Amino acid sequence: MPDRRLELTSAQIVDFQRHALTLADRARSLIQEALRTGFEVKLKSDHSYVTSADVAVEKELRALVAQRYPDHGVLGEEFPPTLPDAPFQWIFDPIDGTEDFVHRVPTYGSILALYYEDLPVVGVVDHPSLDIRCEAAFGQGARHNGKPVRLMDLAADITDARLRLIISARANFLRFYNEAHHFDALTAAFPNHRTYRSCLGHSLVAIGAADVMVDYHDTLWDLAAARILVEEAGGAYRTTGEFVTDDRTRVYSSVFGRPAAVARVCSLLESI
Amino acid sequence: MPDRRLELTSAQIVDFQRHALTLADRARSLIQEALRTGFEVKLKSDHSYVTSADVAVEKELRALVAQRYPDHGVLGEEFPPTLPDAPFQWIFDPIDGTEDFVHRVPTYGSILALYYEDLPVVGVVDHPSLDIRCEAAFGQGARHNGKPVRLMDLAADITDARLRLIISARANFLRFYNEAHHFDALTAAFPNHRTYRSCLGHSLVAIGAADVMVDYHDTLWDLAAARILVEEAGGAYRTTGEFVTDDRTRVYSSVFGRPAAVARVCSLLESI
Repeated sequence: MPDRRLELTSAQIVDFQRHALTLADRARSLIQEALRTGFEVKLKSDHSYVTSADVAVEKELRALVAQRYPDHGVLGEEFPPTLPDAPFQWIFDPIDGTEDFVHRVPTYGSILALYYEDLPVVGVVDHPSLDIRCEAAFGQGARHNGKPVRLMDLAADITDARLRLIISARANFLRFYNEAHHFDALTAAFPNHRTYRSCLGHSLVAIGAADVMVDYHDTLWDLAAARILVEEAGGAYRTTGEFVTDDRTRVYSSVFGRPAAVARVCSLLESI
Repeated sequence: MPDRRLELTSAQIVDFQRHALTLADRARSLIQEALRTGFEVKLKSDHSYVTSADVAVEKELRALVAQRYPDHGVLGEEFPPTLPDAPFQWIFDPIDGTEDFVHRVPTYGSILALYYEDLPVVGVVDHPSLDIRCEAAFGQGARHNGKPVRLMDLAADITDARLRLIISARANFLRFYNEAHHFDALTAAFPNHRTYRSCLGHSLVAIGAADVMVDYHDTLWDLAAARILVEEAGGAYRTTGEFVTDDRTRVYSSVFGRPAAVARVCSLLESI
């Protein structure tokens, strides 16, 4: 199947990218305002959190897309999809890691992406409390706080014991069905792991601060920016699991980062 | 055994605390300068990192202690002990999480404490890249960025599945001898865990942003500030393991945080 992103001109891509950065700026300022002035917190029926800040950010981003690109669709965590059959789809997780945001743990972030024909064209992960922003656009490379980033592959002398793995919490491996034995096998093989919120793992892998991330049982908006960030930085991205839940949510498990580290992790997963 | 800290006057304690904050300010500015201007990195024989910034910070803190309290001892990660028999001992980990610092992951921090007759009098954990500082002094309460903090106990309706656990990487449970089955049992029982560097876990638990931390196979300087931070905030602190290695390093495993969360975790550990 040809990569339909090749139909887009560089000028279009740069225009989309500029708009995505405007959206990220707006999300950051709304989030910082909420941290200053306070926000409402609700526990959803699945015991995940939602705040008035998540809702306000997604509402604002949807309005900015509708104004600029009225024929583009929007998929986000907090509202029903808009124009779900449009070839261009903006995908938003206004605050990934709301549980951390609620507890004022600075590891949360905003995830934004534009997809064309089911492939990512632009991706941004923005961490307002860490002042870290990662962004990438198809064919345009990846950047960390405005500076180009290029991943080196894993050095051959890095043993499995030293490999810097970021892995979802064990709860993720149980979210939709029980794959907790994957968590156990991975932490046993690669004991120098960390567990952060998804978005921080995506950023740290994209800028080479960690070697590889294993992120399990995520929805599309959780992972919306990860693939383009990592691929444009020269890394490898593999979807290792994909299924549809009873309520028709599509769920993904993914491994991404330095190519040799991704190969080592995937080789272990294939042996389980 | 009487608590010998009760021999100290409030005026003395406040004076020590003020000095500890001066040291933390100095550490923060040296670290921020190193991040701006660059630093040298070495891998130690145990594959842990040390940088010119760790050495420069510890050297400076030692000089500031020697100048102000010439009869106090100092124990730190990078230099041999000074006056090891003095009743007052300053304990420093200039950069806890050097591996993260080297990779520009903002979760590292400085740990500083003053002990009197083997009990903590003052503790500070400072995160220069997160702008988080936690500090406490015996009988004076705990503070987060200058504001008093008081831990609420765990709400009774928080299930084990929702409890916010911070746990060391599996590598820590293997560092000196193999207790990895504790890691496996804890992550299975409390799957909503995160793994950060020690110092960030200590801060987040002390300010109530996480419920409990399980920190395994640490040296005294890793844990120097944790106990006073947590106890002065109204939390519980238990040393669950303590041993001396072949090279005479004393190693501790600890559980601390909201009292009911500490009780639940310890009850599981006792059943293993």
